[in-house]
Amino acid sequence: MTAEAVAGPPTIAIAMGDPAGIGAELLAALLAAPDLRNAARFIVFGDKRILDAGAEVAGVDPAVAVAAVDAEFAPAVGRPLLVDLGHLGPDEVTPRTATLAGGRFATENFRHALRHAAAGKADAVFFTPFNKAAMRFAYPGYDDEIRFVRDAIGFDGPASEFNILENLWNARVTSHIPLSGVSAAITEERIVRALALCDRAMRAAGFATPRIAVAGLNPHAGDGGNFGREEIDVIAPAVARAKTEGFAAEGPFPSDTVFLRARNGDFDAVLTMYHDQGQIAMKLMGFDRGVTLIGGFPFPICTPAHGTAYEIAGQGIANPGASRAALSLAIRMARDAVKRSAAAA
Amino acid sequence: MTAEAVAGPPTIAIAMGDPAGIGAELLAALLAAPDLRNAARFIVFGDKRILDAGAEVAGVDPAVAVAAVDAEFAPAVGRPLLVDLGHLGPDEVTPRTATLAGGRFATENFRHALRHAAAGKADAVFFTPFNKAAMRFAYPGYDDEIRFVRDAIGFDGPASEFNILENLWNARVTSHIPLSGVSAAITEERIVRALALCDRAMRAAGFATPRIAVAGLNPHAGDGGNFGREEIDVIAPAVARAKTEGFAAEGPFPSDTVFLRARNGDFDAVLTMYHDQGQIAMKLMGFDRGVTLIGGFPFPICTPAHGTAYEIAGQGIANPGASRAALSLAIRMARDAVKRSAAAA
Repeated sequence: MTAEAVAGPPTIAIAMGDPAGIGAELLAALLAAPDLRNAARFIVFGDKRILDAGAEVAGVDPAVAVAAVDAEFAPAVGRPLLVDLGHLGPDEVTPRTATLAGGRFATENFRHALRHAAAGKADAVFFTPFNKAAMRFAYPGYDDEIRFVRDAIGFDGPASEFNILENLWNARVTSHIPLSGVSAAITEERIVRALALCDRAMRAAGFATPRIAVAGLNPHAGDGGNFGREEIDVIAPAVARAKTEGFAAEGPFPSDTVFLRARNGDFDAVLTMYHDQGQIAMKLMGFDRGVTLIGGFPFPICTPAHGTAYEIAGQGIANPGASRAALSLAIRMARDAVKRSAAAA
Repeated sequence: MTAEAVAGPPTIAIAMGDPAGIGAELLAALLAAPDLRNAARFIVFGDKRILDAGAEVAGVDPAVAVAAVDAEFAPAVGRPLLVDLGHLGPDEVTPRTATLAGGRFATENFRHALRHAAAGKADAVFFTPFNKAAMRFAYPGYDDEIRFVRDAIGFDGPASEFNILENLWNARVTSHIPLSGVSAAITEERIVRALALCDRAMRAAGFATPRIAVAGLNPHAGDGGNFGREEIDVIAPAVARAKTEGFAAEGPFPSDTVFLRARNGDFDAVLTMYHDQGQIAMKLMGFDRGVTLIGGFPFPICTPAHGTAYEIAGQGIANPGASRAALSLAIRMARDAVKRSAAAA
């Protein structure tokens, strides 16, 4: 936490993502938006030439201040600061293609932003989309962002990806593991931990008492034990325990109708047992509008849920809606962290 | 197949479902609709008093002919025939409640309709919604309709439930089994069989060459083997084999985006590996409008995908859209069977 941050708007560290997609044009549009510029201090890690190219595509002037990476820098509200790593020029980018160069650019920017926040100099991190294949070229162990963040800042505690569509959140107990391993992986402990993490992140994002629906694992939530017993043996006890610990949790509910109820406003979040249980629903409800939050780390990390959209890159037609929602969430959560920190001081 | 059927419109055997919900009012509305009455011969198995009560709620006059179960009966186009089993009066119905009496009523009607079709006297079966708890009171082994139909008509071949929303079909390789057993249950053989069953049912429903997308099992369809190998070891080989056998199959695709593509018109059907993979998507896209087809038996069996809707029964506000779509599908598929049979004769 910066001293300035305690005194005012939060600081957001921004990593430029894959250079071959729509990331730079989206970022330029966000940085140029007066409401966003004036709501936080932005430190962008990337290359000025790539941002300039994006600004040209988007038809905006982000009017950033520029600093070298080894200089002293302090971003101001109303004037984003670009820390120019000078590591990639537009002529080195293969448009609409996943490359090692693109992966290096994105991983280096992300690492800088993460470490900046881990060092207490920013309150949240935001990044434009990565391309997974490119990330793997640069960083072979790349399964998802969580592992990368753990490695980058040396953090071991529980962390989880959240998917957010407007006011509806989706958290999950397991993520990038084979479906055949899900049943063994969902313990009472892990469900309660995921629920607590979800509750904490949602409170930080402004929910007073997040109402969290817990999905079952089996068809018809096991149909009273006829199609599997995890609901009876593991999930229901976890929900009961979470309730006694003060969480507004309910369930387990059949996963093929719980999102209908959440969409109708019965719940603020759905905690799913596995990746696709939530992703099928969230993507159907708003593929292009979703936000991804990586929560559990000492600072929130936000990004649009969509990808690099190579097929429309450079045309100036990319919709910045999800990126705006993701950056706004980062600002909101960072502001809350600043407030809590100021109250504790 | 009836001799009459070969010569003209098909015959549909109709079972009255749970008496405590919206079934009777829906059925009365369908039977009273001139376009449906004139498109097929209907034989309804149930109780005249329950149908009359439904007609009063719906504010229609289905104008049925009535026969006793032991009489000779031959339904006419334009005038539905009710085979009055005389086994339940409205005063014996507990409104909006799952009861043994309701389960007995529905199971007996269904058994009559199934056997009527199995004996070649009808070309398709349609039923109004069952209540699963009530079905279990009357028939303790009731897991789903497929097992009931097998028992009722002594049929052993492959059968499957299909979920249909307008022109989008969903078939599945496994259904009412624990999620932990799905991986072991999806063999190449079973996938190809499910695909062939889906293709056959869709052709019978009027698709010239059904384009079937096959879902993966794991997150990101296994991400090249990083999150599970079933896509590589089982599903891709099954799709390849299906293609060489002439099916328009593609995949495996990540299950969290395949329904977006299908909704956009890229495919006519999605074959999913497990129950909720399809049900989450189909219910989100149109919970109240879906149709369920039980395919694979010697005749198609159709019903609306929604349930008995106890909470709105008796108010005359039930939407007959899904029931109309289900009965229309039964008529269309029965007509096709009649044509094929006539061509073979």
